[in-house]
Amino acid sequence: MSLPTWQDRAAARVAEPGEGISRDELALAARNHAMPAEALRWDVTPVGLHYVLVHYDIPAVDAATWRLRVDGGAGSVVDLSLADLEAMPRSTERVTLECAGNGRALLEPRPVSQPWLTGAVGTADWTGVRLVDLLDRVDLRPDAVDVVFRGADHGTERGEEQDYARALPLDEARRPDVLVATEMNGVPLPVQHGFPARLVVPGWYGMAHVKWLTGIEVLDHTFDGFQHRAYRLRQHADDQGVPVTRMLPRALIQPPGYPDFMTRERNLPAGPVRLTGRAWSGRGEVTRVEVSTDDGTTWREAELGPSAGPHAWRSFGIDWDAAPGDHRLRARAGDDTGAVQPLEPAWSRGGFANNGDDAVPVHVHLMPRG
Amino acid sequence: MSLPTWQDRAAARVAEPGEGISRDELALAARNHAMPAEALRWDVTPVGLHYVLVHYDIPAVDAATWRLRVDGGAGSVVDLSLADLEAMPRSTERVTLECAGNGRALLEPRPVSQPWLTGAVGTADWTGVRLVDLLDRVDLRPDAVDVVFRGADHGTERGEEQDYARALPLDEARRPDVLVATEMNGVPLPVQHGFPARLVVPGWYGMAHVKWLTGIEVLDHTFDGFQHRAYRLRQHADDQGVPVTRMLPRALIQPPGYPDFMTRERNLPAGPVRLTGRAWSGRGEVTRVEVSTDDGTTWREAELGPSAGPHAWRSFGIDWDAAPGDHRLRARAGDDTGAVQPLEPAWSRGGFANNGDDAVPVHVHLMPRG
Repeated sequence: MSLPTWQDRAAARVAEPGEGISRDELALAARNHAMPAEALRWDVTPVGLHYVLVHYDIPAVDAATWRLRVDGGAGSVVDLSLADLEAMPRSTERVTLECAGNGRALLEPRPVSQPWLTGAVGTADWTGVRLVDLLDRVDLRPDAVDVVFRGADHGTERGEEQDYARALPLDEARRPDVLVATEMNGVPLPVQHGFPARLVVPGWYGMAHVKWLTGIEVLDHTFDGFQHRAYRLRQHADDQGVPVTRMLPRALIQPPGYPDFMTRERNLPAGPVRLTGRAWSGRGEVTRVEVSTDDGTTWREAELGPSAGPHAWRSFGIDWDAAPGDHRLRARAGDDTGAVQPLEPAWSRGGFANNGDDAVPVHVHLMPRG
Repeated sequence: MSLPTWQDRAAARVAEPGEGISRDELALAARNHAMPAEALRWDVTPVGLHYVLVHYDIPAVDAATWRLRVDGGAGSVVDLSLADLEAMPRSTERVTLECAGNGRALLEPRPVSQPWLTGAVGTADWTGVRLVDLLDRVDLRPDAVDVVFRGADHGTERGEEQDYARALPLDEARRPDVLVATEMNGVPLPVQHGFPARLVVPGWYGMAHVKWLTGIEVLDHTFDGFQHRAYRLRQHADDQGVPVTRMLPRALIQPPGYPDFMTRERNLPAGPVRLTGRAWSGRGEVTRVEVSTDDGTTWREAELGPSAGPHAWRSFGIDWDAAPGDHRLRARAGDDTGAVQPLEPAWSRGGFANNGDDAVPVHVHLMPRG
């Protein structure tokens, strides 16, 4: 066999048919946690319930000595302390953030990586400095192409030792809603969410939101770091693929009734019940959610809650007269660009941007006679 | 086949040899999260990194209407609001809390339940009212045996519908360090840790620390609810077993160096390094920790940090001159009752109180020539 190409090295392995979840996948599932589905009840996800993915270790950052270096690429550099950053004008954005690999463990065959079901999502109020205000403090090179963001988290991934780093095109980086955030839901960033400062790029999947920021640098070329080679939609090992960027539309149902401990299947008394949930898209406003109570055979349009801004999930609800028996609840979202959530998720070697839904099994039973 | 006995219904299924982690187990691993091993660096685990196990759903509790009913069993009842509780004298305990099933997924054969590796642990400062002060506000029945604690979390478990409930013997309940806590690390309890009030029973495994408390009742008999039938050390289906109570001694090493994303194995430059970690026991003070850098062939005694009180983990450290090559780091703790962590964990059908250690694989390499 020849040595793997860079594409191969950057891609997740794909599980054999019927191959169970491995100990490595379990170890990732134990340390990187999803949002539990009942947390869909909150507009803003309580800290600690928001999904978190840490590629390496949570780094130990000393806020007293931490510095953020911003290099415009034209010889002009600023070097900021946390106090410097906090003294600048501040802005808050409510943002729904989803891991690009959300739903990966539901795919067949299964890409072997962090084995998300559908809970790799959350919504927070992020407060910090506008990135454009930081970029305006340095002279930018006239031939600027990309802005690269480096984190303090360090490790190896498919043989390549690295600090986590991702870039944005300059136009995207200058959007007024892109933040260098130091607060989450009104408190300093929790350590696992990037303390003391992280990037927030509303609309993009989580890999763009670099945590534990140490440096921002303007480049005269397209950045081709590991995480850009890794986060691509590829069908086979020789497929260079296309970059993963913005979130596709997705809806999740808040599971009704009460669960079984082991199966997480739901029990629900027969009768009228309001089904609710949340839907989001990183490409446009959610304008339509449909719900099925018969595993996708028939669909009804749900009522949408008020818009929660351009970047936060939107609530939906629909009445259901639950008849005794077994049901499977599904939901699908569409946005104002015309994008609609597919009934079968798109497969790729990394399991990225697969915006399938996940059926919620419900056992409806008659109430005991009183 | 006959119907299962109550013992069978309360026990976890045991996986077949070679059976991979199931989707049900993965769903539990995704929603109930471990403490990532690098969080061993903190004396007090940051909120959001402390392990959490929710048997059913996190309940929606309205603090404004929440009440805690305390029934002494002699016709005497008090019914407290959150403000009532917060107006009482308050006390803080630093407590290391571990799930009784920590390490379950490392057992062979594997009990099928929440598939913990070794991270189901954390240490917090819990603040609240002493339980004994609440019990002193009601007349206790003279024939009191057990005090039962009921939570708002509701679901089914092995066919039995229930609110989560556990009891303590009266003597244990009257210990001055048992709290009805309303704060964790100086802030109101996070929803997933029992908001607005939970029981904290220093020294006991997590199943005793009932979350989302709604009622406390003094009984004239031993409480035999589902969670008491479930949390027993049993070898086979007909074994009535013995109750799970206090934490056995256990040590964990903070993984040195930096990890690989997928395998979590460590990379470390050759040379002197300080290995550190934490050890705890619910039965006595940790008085000894031994560390092996050769997968248990030889052991050296580590230096212990200062005592952190009777109920919190204790730090340890030892110098290691890391030679190039592959190593497996292990640690084992002992306490002042003479209990010592075994080299092989004890097996039971539920996978409880199996205080084995977990080897940390480390690849030591020469530094690149500068």
